[in-house]
Amino acid sequence: MTHNSGMDVHPPTPPSTSSTIATVGPRQAADFERCREAARAVLVLDPQNVPLTPRYLDIIERGLPKMATSHPKKILVIGAGPAGLLAAWLLHQAGHQVTIVEANGNRAGGRIKTFRAGGHERAAAPFADPRQYAEAGAMRIPGSHPLVMALLKKLRLKKRPFYYSDVDHEGHPAGHTWIYVNGIRTRRSDYNRDPQVINQSFGVPRLWWDTPASAILRQVLDPIRDEFSTVKDGKRVDKPLRECLDGWARVIQRFGDWSMYQFLTQYARLDERTIDLIGTLENLTSRLPLSFIHSFIGSYLISPDTVFWELEGGTAALPDSLLQHVGDLIRFDRRVTRIAYFVEGRPATDALHAHSNGPRVWVDSVSEGRDGVVVREQFTADAAVITVPFSGLRHVQFVPHLSYLKRRAIIELHYDSATKVLLEFSRRWWEFTEEDWRRQLEAVRPGLYDDYRTGQAPDDGSLLGVHPSVPAGHITPAQRAHYAANRSLTLVPPEAVGIIGGGSLSDNANRFVFHPSHPVPGSPGGVVLASYSWADDAAKWDSLDDEQRYPHALCGVQQVYGRRVEVFYTGCGRTQSWMRDPYAYGEAAVLLPGQHTELLPAIPTPEGPLHFGGCHTSAKPAWIEGALESAVRAALEVHSY
Amino acid sequence: MTHNSGMDVHPPTPPSTSSTIATVGPRQAADFERCREAARAVLVLDPQNVPLTPRYLDIIERGLPKMATSHPKKILVIGAGPAGLLAAWLLHQAGHQVTIVEANGNRAGGRIKTFRAGGHERAAAPFADPRQYAEAGAMRIPGSHPLVMALLKKLRLKKRPFYYSDVDHEGHPAGHTWIYVNGIRTRRSDYNRDPQVINQSFGVPRLWWDTPASAILRQVLDPIRDEFSTVKDGKRVDKPLRECLDGWARVIQRFGDWSMYQFLTQYARLDERTIDLIGTLENLTSRLPLSFIHSFIGSYLISPDTVFWELEGGTAALPDSLLQHVGDLIRFDRRVTRIAYFVEGRPATDALHAHSNGPRVWVDSVSEGRDGVVVREQFTADAAVITVPFSGLRHVQFVPHLSYLKRRAIIELHYDSATKVLLEFSRRWWEFTEEDWRRQLEAVRPGLYDDYRTGQAPDDGSLLGVHPSVPAGHITPAQRAHYAANRSLTLVPPEAVGIIGGGSLSDNANRFVFHPSHPVPGSPGGVVLASYSWADDAAKWDSLDDEQRYPHALCGVQQVYGRRVEVFYTGCGRTQSWMRDPYAYGEAAVLLPGQHTELLPAIPTPEGPLHFGGCHTSAKPAWIEGALESAVRAALEVHSY
Repeated sequence: MTHNSGMDVHPPTPPSTSSTIATVGPRQAADFERCREAARAVLVLDPQNVPLTPRYLDIIERGLPKMATSHPKKILVIGAGPAGLLAAWLLHQAGHQVTIVEANGNRAGGRIKTFRAGGHERAAAPFADPRQYAEAGAMRIPGSHPLVMALLKKLRLKKRPFYYSDVDHEGHPAGHTWIYVNGIRTRRSDYNRDPQVINQSFGVPRLWWDTPASAILRQVLDPIRDEFSTVKDGKRVDKPLRECLDGWARVIQRFGDWSMYQFLTQYARLDERTIDLIGTLENLTSRLPLSFIHSFIGSYLISPDTVFWELEGGTAALPDSLLQHVGDLIRFDRRVTRIAYFVEGRPATDALHAHSNGPRVWVDSVSEGRDGVVVREQFTADAAVITVPFSGLRHVQFVPHLSYLKRRAIIELHYDSATKVLLEFSRRWWEFTEEDWRRQLEAVRPGLYDDYRTGQAPDDGSLLGVHPSVPAGHITPAQRAHYAANRSLTLVPPEAVGIIGGGSLSDNANRFVFHPSHPVPGSPGGVVLASYSWADDAAKWDSLDDEQRYPHALCGVQQVYGRRVEVFYTGCGRTQSWMRDPYAYGEAAVLLPGQHTELLPAIPTPEGPLHFGGCHTSAKPAWIEGALESAVRAALEVHSY
Repeated sequence: MTHNSGMDVHPPTPPSTSSTIATVGPRQAADFERCREAARAVLVLDPQNVPLTPRYLDIIERGLPKMATSHPKKILVIGAGPAGLLAAWLLHQAGHQVTIVEANGNRAGGRIKTFRAGGHERAAAPFADPRQYAEAGAMRIPGSHPLVMALLKKLRLKKRPFYYSDVDHEGHPAGHTWIYVNGIRTRRSDYNRDPQVINQSFGVPRLWWDTPASAILRQVLDPIRDEFSTVKDGKRVDKPLRECLDGWARVIQRFGDWSMYQFLTQYARLDERTIDLIGTLENLTSRLPLSFIHSFIGSYLISPDTVFWELEGGTAALPDSLLQHVGDLIRFDRRVTRIAYFVEGRPATDALHAHSNGPRVWVDSVSEGRDGVVVREQFTADAAVITVPFSGLRHVQFVPHLSYLKRRAIIELHYDSATKVLLEFSRRWWEFTEEDWRRQLEAVRPGLYDDYRTGQAPDDGSLLGVHPSVPAGHITPAQRAHYAANRSLTLVPPEAVGIIGGGSLSDNANRFVFHPSHPVPGSPGGVVLASYSWADDAAKWDSLDDEQRYPHALCGVQQVYGRRVEVFYTGCGRTQSWMRDPYAYGEAAVLLPGQHTELLPAIPTPEGPLHFGGCHTSAKPAWIEGALESAVRAALEVHSY
């Protein structure tokens, strides 16, 4: 047996039960203090159970506190997503010398990414209409997320409503978009009024025929919510802090090891058909094997009456604005490959010549060689804030090894796939009335409106982009052949939806369709999020090359809205696979059963001069709020050090 | 609410419990008959519990039986993997008119794929030495799989041992390869003798310090195996058929809804550190959230004393050989986009003009346009055998809709990622003794052997492929920069392994390394499977573009075997992401909790003239045996129809 003396092994402390044979009797649930630690992360409390949010808000508004102990340090921030940008700004403002190392060649923002012409990344126009833009990543900001709201205010960014559910032309809730499952199409508002036909199409038991899927789910989750909250005037309100914390800790202790599937079968005792129904309509199917606690926290953070916002010009307006403060600090096109660091109590390797006044962090990086020349660059610093997703850190070497639990977190923390397919149309047909449709199709050629209604319109691809508003030059003969081969055989078109924003859901590969909440000034067209899918659904899109996705996505839209939408298709699409993104390595951390108690508390813990940020270090992965929370925490750690 | 009258909805029969409110009392486990149905699939029994394998063997050897009722039919086989090729051959031999539709432009074999020069696909040489080849997919064939063994014999294909564990130069078991976890490196044979240091590095409780991971796993699974088998002379033997069947059904009923994680925590009551240990060493970490039954069946089909075989010239020798019989029947470069069919009792659409003597299946396809021209082609037939993975069928339209459970299976059946990274070396350094190493490194330049041993060898990429045996021209300056930035900082090289075949395992991103079991005639070099990983581990490799994977993979190999292997690296690598493959859509079906009882029985069921084949329609997904089993079954169905 060889001990690798150059590497630090850190045999972890054996669990407290390790000395007795009783361990293999009944397994203990995670001990209550660990569950309380996870609960504190959910509620954003410090170890003394004091809410951290007021302090963090103050820091976003007024900067890091002046500290007697703090002196200017050389700091590396790895990753220029929202966490890295905010941490860098705060530390820079506080007088530290900050460098941001970013793998992307020219874009900051991480999983905030807007397909657009121009911007700080100076992108070529992604759509036929150069004014059009659409979100590859974060697209809606919950009004209930205080740190983002404060940052938007501080940066004076303009926000406007994001309609998660469709509204009519006066802005009132409409519910006209479609649910299209098991070959049955119904409007959302009709489903909520009378769910029977849809529910029966799944074969759910009689008991649930008349209950919408969302209500079934609420019903089975309510007893769990009662642990930490009560219903007042029809709204859930948290119990007093200490009770709320202990309630959350009890929930985590009881269900921490459970998957959502286990909860639905073993606790809620739902039959498989009802699970099919709520899985499809409430977007749970792809998360059934994942942590119950993860989905449950999600439903706690986003209540049904949450108001969402979007940014004028796209979510990338946020990194654009942060770059005005820290843009000069960024080293683009540097993928970090190795991080060496010095920490008391762990043996340094020969490669590290740490002196009391010398650097404590050495970072190797390499450019991606887009211009043909590959450059290595090394950075040194007193401390580093690492905001790379843990999935990406799997390919980064640390010397010496990180602690046991951090290593396990990097190995095991589950990241989800999420894939978007966006299609551009020359007119916002989802806003049309049936009369608009008639007028627009007759403008193509007399009789076309009725030809579509009676299934007589030719299905050989010749009608693709045939409306006079579609600019020429984007649809090739190859595209026509692909679209014709994939065209939907739905014969009778559904009625117009005639709404703004919101979207439809189906059990086809597209799953979720979203319409833009606002027109792009000056443009009569719009970009539809033709497919938004996660996990296994997303992986199937990811098997297709980018260019192959568009005909399939259009076909799925046609199944839901009717074939006739094809006349407005410009031939331009964009798609984003977050799992295939070489720097994101997934959409976000979505934890597996057991990971909230085993891994979550260890994720944000510093290791010597290394500090960890990014949404995955909070209890709100995937949300900008979680990234900002982590940025303030990590900046404070470094600043106070 | 709109009913789409063009589509057939098939409201499924409500579950038997649907008529009473008692459903939401304690959830019933799947009823015993459904569990017995799944158990029959595992044991390959017909509904009367008669073993099917003898009959299937007879068909592989002598063809489909002559039947009074059968008349020549026009048959489409979709997919030219092993299932499609065998089904087509059997049906063709029996006098049917068969066409095989394959999406790949020039390659048959599906997930049997050999990186090689030439072959039926006429590939360019993938490695610097044009004689070298390596497996992108199936690489080892268990001797315990009767149908594959029979087919190899029938086709007179030459097989030779595949060493799953390393052997010495006389072919005796060696166990010299490495386990490298938590920064500790130990030989496999040493670990099995004395697991304490490794086990303690995971912090497992005292009770398990002296038990190898494989034995811990065996110990917790043994009570489950006792349900259907007994131990005789140290080996597991199935109980008499009926007892064995009912034992399996009981196991499926009790654990059908469970994940492996749930089993290990809730039944075996293992602590999280012991789960970390067996997850890492027994390759279970990535499958913890997936079905317990799936992993358990896998361990039943492959016992520790299973002998593995490989084919001379690579596994592609099997499709090569089948193509000699059915090559003329294949239509390459046709991706199926839509399948319309006529079935009694389901309303046809206007698009289907079914006459009593006309075709019953219409298939649309499109070429991928590699030559710039995209061609649509339609096929008609009396029946079709569809062998496309269900993950791929998610993007194929069926008109009318398939039955409820088939649709759910296509939506939900989980497919796993698996990714291989292969690196070519000009010498088979894993066969070296320490003396060989000295001689080879001194041949580069005097002193280099000791420079590597003392950590003095330059780490700027200049030693990459520096051995005189490495052919010039494959290593660019960009590659050198990438390798240097990613090089491992392991300082003290481990000793030579000096073995043939087998491989090492580590907790780094590479996870599993395999060496070739046999030299390629005439070639002094060899291709190492530098990384073989699954699920989340594979997804992280898939985030990297192909070219980015090689430096990371070499670095991982160096962590395990020492930096000095770099001198033999030729600069040539190959990689295969099965999840990113546009026709495979994943490595294989790996079922989620509950899917064995909810979905498995519905997967192979014909729908009118449509029959379903492929390994996912058997209880042996990922194995060629499962594909062949399905091919014989589907061919019999079509032939007897």
